[in-house]
Amino acid sequence: MEQRVRVLIDCEDAKGLVYKISKVFYDRDLNIDSNREFVDKEQNKFFMRTVVSGSFDVLELESALKEIAPTNARLKVIVPKRKKIVILATKESHALGDILIRHEAGELNADIEAVIANHDTLECLVRRFDIPFFCVPAKDISREEHEEQVMKLIDKHEFDYIVLAKYMRILTSTFVSVYPRQIINIHHSFLPAFIGANPYKQAFKRGVKIIGATAHFVTDDLDEGPIIAQDVIPVNHRLEWRDMQSAGRDVEKIVLSRALNFVLNDRVFVHGNKTIVF
Amino acid sequence: MEQRVRVLIDCEDAKGLVYKISKVFYDRDLNIDSNREFVDKEQNKFFMRTVVSGSFDVLELESALKEIAPTNARLKVIVPKRKKIVILATKESHALGDILIRHEAGELNADIEAVIANHDTLECLVRRFDIPFFCVPAKDISREEHEEQVMKLIDKHEFDYIVLAKYMRILTSTFVSVYPRQIINIHHSFLPAFIGANPYKQAFKRGVKIIGATAHFVTDDLDEGPIIAQDVIPVNHRLEWRDMQSAGRDVEKIVLSRALNFVLNDRVFVHGNKTIVF
Amino acid sequence: MEQRVRVLIDCEDAKGLVYKISKVFYDRDLNIDSNREFVDKEQNKFFMRTVVSGSFDVLELESALKEIAPTNARLKVIVPKRKKIVILATKESHALGDILIRHEAGELNADIEAVIANHDTLECLVRRFDIPFFCVPAKDISREEHEEQVMKLIDKHEFDYIVLAKYMRILTSTFVSVYPRQIINIHHSFLPAFIGANPYKQAFKRGVKIIGATAHFVTDDLDEGPIIAQDVIPVNHRLEWRDMQSAGRDVEKIVLSRALNFVLNDRVFVHGNKTIVF
Amino acid sequence: MEQRVRVLIDCEDAKGLVYKISKVFYDRDLNIDSNREFVDKEQNKFFMRTVVSGSFDVLELESALKEIAPTNARLKVIVPKRKKIVILATKESHALGDILIRHEAGELNADIEAVIANHDTLECLVRRFDIPFFCVPAKDISREEHEEQVMKLIDKHEFDYIVLAKYMRILTSTFVSVYPRQIINIHHSFLPAFIGANPYKQAFKRGVKIIGATAHFVTDDLDEGPIIAQDVIPVNHRLEWRDMQSAGRDVEKIVLSRALNFVLNDRVFVHGNKTIVF
Repeated sequence: MEQRVRVLIDCEDAKGLVYKISKVFYDRDLNIDSNREFVDKEQNKFFMRTVVSGSFDVLELESALKEIAPTNARLKVIVPKRKKIVILATKESHALGDILIRHEAGELNADIEAVIANHDTLECLVRRFDIPFFCVPAKDISREEHEEQVMKLIDKHEFDYIVLAKYMRILTSTFVSVYPRQIINIHHSFLPAFIGANPYKQAFKRGVKIIGATAHFVTDDLDEGPIIAQDVIPVNHRLEWRDMQSAGRDVEKIVLSRALNFVLNDRVFVHGNKTIVF
Repeated sequence: MEQRVRVLIDCEDAKGLVYKISKVFYDRDLNIDSNREFVDKEQNKFFMRTVVSGSFDVLELESALKEIAPTNARLKVIVPKRKKIVILATKESHALGDILIRHEAGELNADIEAVIANHDTLECLVRRFDIPFFCVPAKDISREEHEEQVMKLIDKHEFDYIVLAKYMRILTSTFVSVYPRQIINIHHSFLPAFIGANPYKQAFKRGVKIIGATAHFVTDDLDEGPIIAQDVIPVNHRLEWRDMQSAGRDVEKIVLSRALNFVLNDRVFVHGNKTIVF
Repeated sequence: MEQRVRVLIDCEDAKGLVYKISKVFYDRDLNIDSNREFVDKEQNKFFMRTVVSGSFDVLELESALKEIAPTNARLKVIVPKRKKIVILATKESHALGDILIRHEAGELNADIEAVIANHDTLECLVRRFDIPFFCVPAKDISREEHEEQVMKLIDKHEFDYIVLAKYMRILTSTFVSVYPRQIINIHHSFLPAFIGANPYKQAFKRGVKIIGATAHFVTDDLDEGPIIAQDVIPVNHRLEWRDMQSAGRDVEKIVLSRALNFVLNDRVFVHGNKTIVF
Repeated sequence: MEQRVRVLIDCEDAKGLVYKISKVFYDRDLNIDSNREFVDKEQNKFFMRTVVSGSFDVLELESALKEIAPTNARLKVIVPKRKKIVILATKESHALGDILIRHEAGELNADIEAVIANHDTLECLVRRFDIPFFCVPAKDISREEHEEQVMKLIDKHEFDYIVLAKYMRILTSTFVSVYPRQIINIHHSFLPAFIGANPYKQAFKRGVKIIGATAHFVTDDLDEGPIIAQDVIPVNHRLEWRDMQSAGRDVEKIVLSRALNFVLNDRVFVHGNKTIVF
């Protein structure tokens, strides 16, 4: 069957890797449609993302690659298909709305399985798009109880990634550890500047001339996970913090969507607390 | 005499300020060539930079403005003229070199009175431009002794501003307090990210996708002074920290020169630990 | 009555203008909340946008200002209120969708009276937001007939501005002349590069390293109207023209929304075929 | 001998290319230090830049690669070494000065063999750096005569590239054809906007909100050669064309230096009237 797959390899670097991998492709008469590699010399790590096409059996290709790959290699042969995501949000609509519009236009490359929020503010917007919305109020219950309810809801859905579209609650280690490398957050500052609460107030107070946004994988350390994408906009003395917040929304939504686009197309490797984006 | 001056006012906000000020201009038959104002409502402060031209006496204008200005107003009537600067540097030539080339082209709007460095690396470059160079080695003497020698040298020159063009030493409070609002530094990160030593190593380690530079007035708090200008460039996983350092040099020199241009044209107000740039 | 208005003046430059205008404010005991001026010396033109607050009668203020303003001055005293817009679109949803989401969030500062399109592709999206949608197919009728139908529909609504959110039809002089300075378009290139059809194909063919978008007022000359806002993003050899188109959508929608924000807040003066944005 | 070389291949795309090339490396026990590929599917072209290291014979490697490469392949095995450049300039010093400072700091990765100008304005600056300067006045002689003199001077030097650092004269086809893919120019606009004379005046007149610069290889068609690098900066109504020119200088010099850095490190392929920059 004529088909096209993405091959992702992440392993110790070694001589002959490219040769051996490309030999596997060559022996099966495959076309290399695109190929990107990176070697981290300091840590002796090799990363490769290759798109190959031809007439072949995916499982056979995968096992052939496994045979020649170094031990402990992370190897994936991915047949491109729409991924599934669950979105967590709070009250702000810009990041969520941007994803909804892309979804509606068929540009997201993912299905939105559900939107879960700790307030009902966004219910109307989400329902307009015929997407399931669940409100899990956090009031009067412990952080742990709240997360348990959210996780129960999440787990009722199939998903590849959990997208925090301005979800304004801090996740516990428990939550994070259940979904490793699966949670993508948009933080409203150019990290590592202005970690923590209300970065726009911090930025205003500090008198910066540039503000930004950061999309990153969520790990145990608050705002310290691997950065996927960042962008900035200029500001000046005329903007109060609420103006910065308002101006920042455009950067937030664009950066989140850019990061999602990378992740949903399998272009991102996590490498320690960094990313490699091909 | 036909002339043009810059009027800078920085005071408590009050009703009628613009009226009273513009009346002073009107009564003297002056043209307003450009005019910029800003009101910080939270702190009830008024800032104004007006360029007026006509046939008038500068001192008389100044005293007329003083009469109508609120008590404690900072008021300046500036006859535009080339300022004088003293530059402090260490070993890197990009920021210094950029200033030297602008100076040579007549684009700096300032005279460089002297370059003082704690190494002799840049001596040859500076001498090429027939500018006095002084080396004050910091080896084997205390920070205080070193600064004393540097200050002695500085004070032998006339200057409006001291420019730290990648001067890689931390200044003591004593030094800073002697030249309030007169010292301009270029920091090699988009502050407040990566305060302190080797920001490029920090940036590399953190895996950011953007690096930057910050020009600011130097105050007692390291890297915490009022920011004048900032800019950034994108980076990716392929850059090691030395590549970031190399790429960052272009931002550093451009941001410093932009800040200098603002300051030398009297376009910057310091307002707490922020700036207003007109 | 305590209130706040925007005063916009656009006239021949003359000595004493600021004084006379601020005297009008002073005599009525008004606060100047913000004030921006610009003098085009070459053409001897004066532009001013002032926000004043206090207890006063709007009509009386307006007539007082008219009295002191030069003949032929364009003078507006605007009580800030939500404007009304009619949107024209074709098939693409990104620019329209961005406006719809902002509208829903209460961030647009305008009511969307209707969306009119020459295809029905966007009907479903618009109806989701309970906004009137009208399809006027252009097939089998002349350009003039089509425009007549569109204008009939437009004129059934109250509106301050007509927003072309990727309306992919060229307007006739007749159409444009009916709505002077009221039509805002987003063009998918950094004008004046790539005027005309399919700018992304042109950009791809030329091998540029940067693409962009331009929001402008529509005048008789195709793509030659006064520019309100522009922005760009980097591209490289790996993007085919469809990738550029896709990447460009984010810039298009952000630039259009930024321009709309300027226009809806009365921050834009048209000055020949240029704009002054305060 | 332990060494590192850059392998550049540019040929018709074909199945098995990566395999065959990497086999050549593998058979010689070479390390692939970095590897970048690009396939232009539309035109069926393959581009590859690989850095390999190990103990090998350069000529033997080259001939082995030639054997497996498709007919008509452009193949280069480059032992990294400082390139040589000749600079052409006119009166402006910013682009030239930036290169001189980098050169002095050892950051240029090239030797400046000579600076040739049609005015003597820059003589003093160039001599400060002990670099040969030649003035070839264009006054009172024909374009052809002038170019002949310039070419005679150029040809007295060894060089890999001719850098036009704001050389304000249009080159004839004759001149260009003598140095194919060897002439790099900095144009003071974000091409293809504002082709031709005085782009800043054009930009001012058009009222753009962004200006830029473009570094490109020079071909027969004025301002139409393959673009290597571009960048932009925001402008607004307050800048007259001379202010734009002044602001643009920073972009010009940075873009030229960025392009030079790409070219001098053999990272640029010319592909029709486009470039591929690895």
